[in-house]
Amino acid sequence: MRRRSIGVNFNEVGIASIRVWTPHAKRVLLRLTNRKADLPLEELGYGYWELITGQLKPDDNYQFVLDDKTLPDPASLFQPEGVHGPSQAVDLKDFTWTDNKWKNPEQDKYIIYEIHTGTFTPEGTFAGIEQKLDHLVSLGITAIEIMPVAQFPGERNWGYDGVFPFAVQNTYGGAKGLMKLVNACHHKGLAVILDVVYNHIGPEGNYFNEFGAYFTEKYKTPWGNAINFDDAWSDAVRGYYTENALMWFRDFHIDALRMDAVHAIKDFSAKHILQEIKEAVNRLIEQTGKQHYLIAELDLNDSRFINPIDKGGFGIDGQWVDEFHHALRVTAGGERDGYYSDFNGIKDLAKSYRDAYVYDGVYSPQRLKTFGNKVEDNPGQQFVVFSQNHDQVGNRMLGERSSQLSSFEMQKLMAAAVMVSPYLPLIFMGEEWSTQSPFQYFVSHSDPELVEAVRKGRREEFSAFRSEGEAPDPQAEETFERSKLNWDDINSVMLDYYKTLIQFRKQLPALSNLNRKNLAVSYDENRQTLLLRRWQHEQKVYCLMNFSKENQPVNFAGNKRLKQVFNSADQKWNGPGVVNSLQPQSIIIYTN
Amino acid sequence: MRRRSIGVNFNEVGIASIRVWTPHAKRVLLRLTNRKADLPLEELGYGYWELITGQLKPDDNYQFVLDDKTLPDPASLFQPEGVHGPSQAVDLKDFTWTDNKWKNPEQDKYIIYEIHTGTFTPEGTFAGIEQKLDHLVSLGITAIEIMPVAQFPGERNWGYDGVFPFAVQNTYGGAKGLMKLVNACHHKGLAVILDVVYNHIGPEGNYFNEFGAYFTEKYKTPWGNAINFDDAWSDAVRGYYTENALMWFRDFHIDALRMDAVHAIKDFSAKHILQEIKEAVNRLIEQTGKQHYLIAELDLNDSRFINPIDKGGFGIDGQWVDEFHHALRVTAGGERDGYYSDFNGIKDLAKSYRDAYVYDGVYSPQRLKTFGNKVEDNPGQQFVVFSQNHDQVGNRMLGERSSQLSSFEMQKLMAAAVMVSPYLPLIFMGEEWSTQSPFQYFVSHSDPELVEAVRKGRREEFSAFRSEGEAPDPQAEETFERSKLNWDDINSVMLDYYKTLIQFRKQLPALSNLNRKNLAVSYDENRQTLLLRRWQHEQKVYCLMNFSKENQPVNFAGNKRLKQVFNSADQKWNGPGVVNSLQPQSIIIYTN
Repeated sequence: MRRRSIGVNFNEVGIASIRVWTPHAKRVLLRLTNRKADLPLEELGYGYWELITGQLKPDDNYQFVLDDKTLPDPASLFQPEGVHGPSQAVDLKDFTWTDNKWKNPEQDKYIIYEIHTGTFTPEGTFAGIEQKLDHLVSLGITAIEIMPVAQFPGERNWGYDGVFPFAVQNTYGGAKGLMKLVNACHHKGLAVILDVVYNHIGPEGNYFNEFGAYFTEKYKTPWGNAINFDDAWSDAVRGYYTENALMWFRDFHIDALRMDAVHAIKDFSAKHILQEIKEAVNRLIEQTGKQHYLIAELDLNDSRFINPIDKGGFGIDGQWVDEFHHALRVTAGGERDGYYSDFNGIKDLAKSYRDAYVYDGVYSPQRLKTFGNKVEDNPGQQFVVFSQNHDQVGNRMLGERSSQLSSFEMQKLMAAAVMVSPYLPLIFMGEEWSTQSPFQYFVSHSDPELVEAVRKGRREEFSAFRSEGEAPDPQAEETFERSKLNWDDINSVMLDYYKTLIQFRKQLPALSNLNRKNLAVSYDENRQTLLLRRWQHEQKVYCLMNFSKENQPVNFAGNKRLKQVFNSADQKWNGPGVVNSLQPQSIIIYTN
Repeated sequence: MRRRSIGVNFNEVGIASIRVWTPHAKRVLLRLTNRKADLPLEELGYGYWELITGQLKPDDNYQFVLDDKTLPDPASLFQPEGVHGPSQAVDLKDFTWTDNKWKNPEQDKYIIYEIHTGTFTPEGTFAGIEQKLDHLVSLGITAIEIMPVAQFPGERNWGYDGVFPFAVQNTYGGAKGLMKLVNACHHKGLAVILDVVYNHIGPEGNYFNEFGAYFTEKYKTPWGNAINFDDAWSDAVRGYYTENALMWFRDFHIDALRMDAVHAIKDFSAKHILQEIKEAVNRLIEQTGKQHYLIAELDLNDSRFINPIDKGGFGIDGQWVDEFHHALRVTAGGERDGYYSDFNGIKDLAKSYRDAYVYDGVYSPQRLKTFGNKVEDNPGQQFVVFSQNHDQVGNRMLGERSSQLSSFEMQKLMAAAVMVSPYLPLIFMGEEWSTQSPFQYFVSHSDPELVEAVRKGRREEFSAFRSEGEAPDPQAEETFERSKLNWDDINSVMLDYYKTLIQFRKQLPALSNLNRKNLAVSYDENRQTLLLRRWQHEQKVYCLMNFSKENQPVNFAGNKRLKQVFNSADQKWNGPGVVNSLQPQSIIIYTN
């Protein structure tokens, strides 16, 4: 099978081909760092340079010398000494996969569990995650989603400051560590989604400008100049990211990618880069017969991204729907500042159950413009929803979770509201046992100016909240340590509650089938109640939710044959008990 | 019928409604300039202010006072004293239309004649054009295309420096002058296309920033910050341009718009502004039953713009194909610098005959990237082609036309190559008689710094051509005068040639039907010959072109039943005469 078209690749007899794109260099050398040898690359055309040699061996350190600059490989697979050190050659074939019986589930079977490798376990490594797979299997989720693992500066980072998109973070366990985890997941029946960042490159250890036009000045993003997807020389940059997506699927057996903030990918090309990646992935799927999904974090409410290519879409398989979260949080009585100010509670939650997007061509006061278009024939599995995720928790000043912000009853109601949705549910690590650990923003840069800038940015972002205390220092190791899950504080009632909910979702066809047409929603703004009805063939499921702090009557007429099968107010979930009405902040599920 | 939602509108009894968008003003007044009276507007919400009054009458001058600034109306319909003066109220209903029998032709019947009002006639006015309609009718064209008429600074301008998109240039004859011309055209059986500029606003007399966020800093264009189509407050800006398109159709009876350089419209909204305009025009068409077309100047080779909305396109009816021009000019032996460097002569001309786009997903050396996508089911009437136009002539240092650059034989060959294409042909004014007048770049700004900047830009653009002489001074009146058509230099042979060609196109169903599937092209790079075959039902038309300077044999086998019906080498067209072969730089048309 085709290997990477850039970086280092070893053939079957151990000969390395080394390729790098750097169109303006006059001379390019491969420096064998430990052996003090320099080998010249030859120009191939279109700015690519190549060397085929037996002298570079797996695990050798190397650098490129462009004219007079010595730099790591932009397509490095390993940075043993971090982002500023040399690259290390890795033979991606050198791993014994035993997951040949694994089959990626159908997309609508995904129940996703988001993990930050560094804080999920005390070890903060892939090996640490592997120790917890039995916990995840017994919880019932079907896929883990790992926050970005591309090499970032230092040892502590959410992952969005990665500067080597092909290199797996050294402190997490590197490429082989990730392969071992994926292999183990597949043995346990878990799919693996990897979060990848194609919209920006981190600020420290970013040597891309030395190589060529990886960035363009045409567009601005919140993180500086946009990555060059449509300006001169963009073919190489597009190829770089397409190659990256293929590598995870082909060489790491990753089942799906979660592509970070694709709204910050600025591309006016006749073929959008996401479509180009999708087409490349489709070719890979044809070759291997193995299914892979692309899921985008998308804040444009533009169904073009997820529509099929033959309908003029980009063909992306799914997307996150933050608006479901925002509507749910406001309904649950959360704050209404910032982006929450656009959300009107239960009415918008109902809208999102029905149409996924809340803003689908209507005026958004917060954005001061009309926003979004309509989701038409897209099935429910194209949308990922959640009541918490790393951003929604971690972008609070103190990184508090629902466990610290909402009552136990409301936490249960929100969990169920997600799990009965016609979309793919996502749980943020620890949510399932109502963990008390915060998830705060942390970095470990080595550039003092950058550290100060990040601190300052963080302070300024939360200046309005000064009365609530000081924002934690993102650079401090304690901030990271504080954010680690405490596996000794498991609330077993909540854990059992989540397990039961997930079982319900899997077992009731009316819940597990994600045909959005078999669905109806009604709500009562005064009572703050919402009735979600879903059905599949003969089965009906009614989910009656009460977001108010009062008891509310159960009155849906003509459905006497429905029986209560789940009640979040049940005493077994530490609730106030089952009564003939809806308890405050509770959900009842009925079926026939 | 609905009137403009902005600017001044008079109802049936002469009451004016005045509306302006200026979201940050604290106070907005209507100043009746001649009567020294100020009337306050009321805030409507979303940044709109309104006044309904009987005090403002048609032909009254007025301004807006925003807090302490006195400004013309951004939606002004007339600027009697130019771009810096007051606006004048116009009652668009105050014109007696007599074109009720007019019916916009089917799009595939368009044969377009591009006119610059200021230089087409000695008068340089709409009334001047009206005098020449009989010439155009006898030529056989079916539509005139008028270069932009939106009020620009001074009296001399191509039109792309317009700063009042709703006001018709005062020196051309204003709104009523344009209405009179359109009415006359319709009586003569000519459709009218108007060139409109929605991608930038000119540099002098541009008061838009005083009113609100008409521009965004998100994107850069060759003409500065992009117009705000997707940033905060963009609804009003989108509405402004949508309203503009509707006005030309509804109030001026314009048949089609040519939208300038839509590739410079930067819009990542879930609904592209062009689609929004198209949908608004479709609603107008439904109301009135009158057909209108939107044609884009598009340099992205992205068929999404012209694909139907239900296939994920923006629904634009047609586009210019500069690449056909570039391929044709290179084939005809023109220079190969600048954007021409991407074109390889006859091979690319054949490609453009077949696929419209030359670069349809292949690497463009000039752009240093892969460019374009493929045209699929789009019929030929969606593409406008030409061998000359205002840009291709006027953006040369000396503004020379083909008449000064190519032999008479080659001019005839190029004209025919356009006219037998399966696309909509466009003729640039004067081309039909091989006019010797150049079409140079001219302006008449009043800001000395701007004048100097334009001069400098022009000099620098052509610094490589210094050996060919000095670039004409764009600000000089002589540059404008030199560019006026000289109606005394008509080459009647060429004129007759064009008339005959146009007749052929209209009369032969195999030429007039623009189904791109009934077409085949072959070519011989050594001989520089190209055979274009087109057919419709039983009729076949073969067009055999010789771009070389040598005689070439006629050898297409098995078609003895085809007879020669047109030969550009005919002595009646001042050619070397009809022989048993293809004369140098000639075309023969055969049919059965």
